Amino acid sequence: MQAIAVSRDSEGPICIEKPRPEPEPGEALIQTLRVGIDGTDHEIINGSYGEYPDGEDHLVLGHEAVGMVEDPGTTNLERGDIVTPTVRRSPNGDSVYFDRGEPDMAPEGSYHERGIIGSHGYFSEFFTSQAHHLASIPSSLAQVGFLVEPLSVVHKAIELATSSRSSFTWEPTAALVLGNGSLGLLMLAHLTTTDTYKRCYCLGRRDRPDPTIDIIERLGATYIDSRETPVDMIPSAYESMDFICEATGYAPHAFKTVDALAPNGVGALLGVPDSLNFEIDGGALHNELVLHNKALIGSVNSNMSHFETATEDLRTFPDWFIDSLITDVYPLSKFMHAFDDDDDTTIKTAVQLSAYEERWWSHRKCGWTSQTRAVEGWNRGWIERLARNG
Amino acid sequence: MQAIAVSRDSEGPICIEKPRPEPEPGEALIQTLRVGIDGTDHEIINGSYGEYPDGEDHLVLGHEAVGMVEDPGTTNLERGDIVTPTVRRSPNGDSVYFDRGEPDMAPEGSYHERGIIGSHGYFSEFFTSQAHHLASIPSSLAQVGFLVEPLSVVHKAIELATSSRSSFTWEPTAALVLGNGSLGLLMLAHLTTTDTYKRCYCLGRRDRPDPTIDIIERLGATYIDSRETPVDMIPSAYESMDFICEATGYAPHAFKTVDALAPNGVGALLGVPDSLNFEIDGGALHNELVLHNKALIGSVNSNMSHFETATEDLRTFPDWFIDSLITDVYPLSKFMHAFDDDDDTTIKTAVQLSAYEERWWSHRKCGWTSQTRAVEGWNRGWIERLARNG
Repeated sequence: MQAIAVSRDSEGPICIEKPRPEPEPGEALIQTLRVGIDGTDHEIINGSYGEYPDGEDHLVLGHEAVGMVEDPGTTNLERGDIVTPTVRRSPNGDSVYFDRGEPDMAPEGSYHERGIIGSHGYFSEFFTSQAHHLASIPSSLAQVGFLVEPLSVVHKAIELATSSRSSFTWEPTAALVLGNGSLGLLMLAHLTTTDTYKRCYCLGRRDRPDPTIDIIERLGATYIDSRETPVDMIPSAYESMDFICEATGYAPHAFKTVDALAPNGVGALLGVPDSLNFEIDGGALHNELVLHNKALIGSVNSNMSHFETATEDLRTFPDWFIDSLITDVYPLSKFMHAFDDDDDTTIKTAVQLSAYEERWWSHRKCGWTSQTRAVEGWNRGWIERLARNG
Repeated sequence: MQAIAVSRDSEGPICIEKPRPEPEPGEALIQTLRVGIDGTDHEIINGSYGEYPDGEDHLVLGHEAVGMVEDPGTTNLERGDIVTPTVRRSPNGDSVYFDRGEPDMAPEGSYHERGIIGSHGYFSEFFTSQAHHLASIPSSLAQVGFLVEPLSVVHKAIELATSSRSSFTWEPTAALVLGNGSLGLLMLAHLTTTDTYKRCYCLGRRDRPDPTIDIIERLGATYIDSRETPVDMIPSAYESMDFICEATGYAPHAFKTVDALAPNGVGALLGVPDSLNFEIDGGALHNELVLHNKALIGSVNSNMSHFETATEDLRTFPDWFIDSLITDVYPLSKFMHAFDDDDDTTIKTAVQLSAYEERWWSHRKCGWTSQTRAVEGWNRGWIERLARNG
């Protein structure tokens, strides 16, 4: 089968041939439908992040995937089930964090991350996984299920941030997302489609016309241009924020978040920056954190419970949002285009390894159910794009 | 009656004469037994913090107090009840934060703080307070009830920090207190007398022999000299910490806390520093917060629920600890000595405005109950010190 990998011997991602994996006991064989690309993939490609599996000369990429059960093996899954896999795995099988269902809280060095750290990812025509690391999702999400993983990261961050405010009455009304990349926009879609926040804002640094600004505004949020309004000036230009999600990886934003928070507010940090020295008024920041009961919460990864709530959430997102967010889906033969992110019109890209539609019809012999929303509409858009890109 | 105040016209605290207050409806008149001194008092005296009450030329100090009900007025209190007052008050009487019992979460500008911001404190022979701002405490704590307020600040911080870790299984074993002042030592006493932490540490910058180091070690904790082991080196020299409480007001400590935390750890910040510019590796700190799910939580003030848990906690502290922590109790005639903190042997000082013992016996006509622990022992020690200081 074909797989997209990084290798010690070559630059950039390459297409390699690998044997189709055989499921071990407890594992299912999954036919990969689509794999999404994110910033972590780019970091692995440029060598700033990631680890090869022990003793191997390549790492199969892909940690945002949706697939269909091809062979359920000894598991309770059924052939044709649509699944999306979680990312972390226990290398030795014995980890209290994994036993608790909280691999997202496992300390560095005690886990592999498929497609990222020490374990092959899902960017191949087939992959195997233990069934308890596979979230079953509705077939209506078969095309977009690769968004469950990044959206689960949003849910984990929201959960951590909200619990940090749970010892008192917290009635947030204003939220700000720092960053208009795909993760930031997923966070914004979550915030604007729940009832919690009355006013949402998203910070970027792009000129109009811009498709992310269009999405921000269509979601009912306010676009803030960081070149005009730096993070710490947001309270005076707009308002103080009860919740801020940092999804930029730009460290000065993480610290200026403290100034942009309202009293009792919380900032969730999701970006993973490299070392960067800069000066801060640490006294003022420390003072502000204390005197206004503010919090900064780092959050990484997610677990099965977040995959489940993210799946529910994804089903409530408006069709136009998902259609606008996923700017391109490429066939495997043109996978390299999915890694181009120079274009200002690109937001989220994916690669289609197997077409879902035909398999669905052959497996299930039934039409779309009423819960599938406008799946046909998405298919139509993507099939057109596939044709354009193919 | 006599009161200790700061005035626009004079330097340092002065003793003034004021009329004895009359309780308004809903208020009780309290005879002040003892008032504790802390760093905030020193900041008010040196002019770096605090606000005079509107239109007044002086501010009566004192926000850590214990007293006895002299006139319960229309309240449900009884004459002779021992009480300790909370600090924040709503200037206009209409505040959603106060209505919820969460004045500690009220934003700046929406509250007064008695003895600190805009409202006279308790450093006078009598004071009045609405009954719902008075925590009733056992008479066994009549001598040391002024510790309930600072200990309630510890409880509030613990509650905020713990709730921030409540969305996952958090099993902390190692705790570190930054700062060996009275607040840090109260936090350490709390941490070492609960079952949560197996190993506790306390950071200071003092040479042996030193009474705070003696207390730290007698509590079963390990003393860390910051001159030998800076905060960010603590993990390599000792271990990573699940919980860190910063009680120094030294801003670089707040940021280095991130490096000293174990994965999934939380740092509670209590210090209130002034502006201080310094350089940080903000990228590394941000990265560390995210990749290890770490949190920094600012915490200020406390509410009645924290006064209640602090009261219970104070009753479990070993007698020797309280006796060692309160290094001096001065009579009102020598109140100035209570503000001397140059001496390395001084930890916590208080001023006695009225002797509890006599009043107790005349009011209640009963002996110490079995729950009062070694109150007589404390009295003896303090009476000796009063004699020495008087």
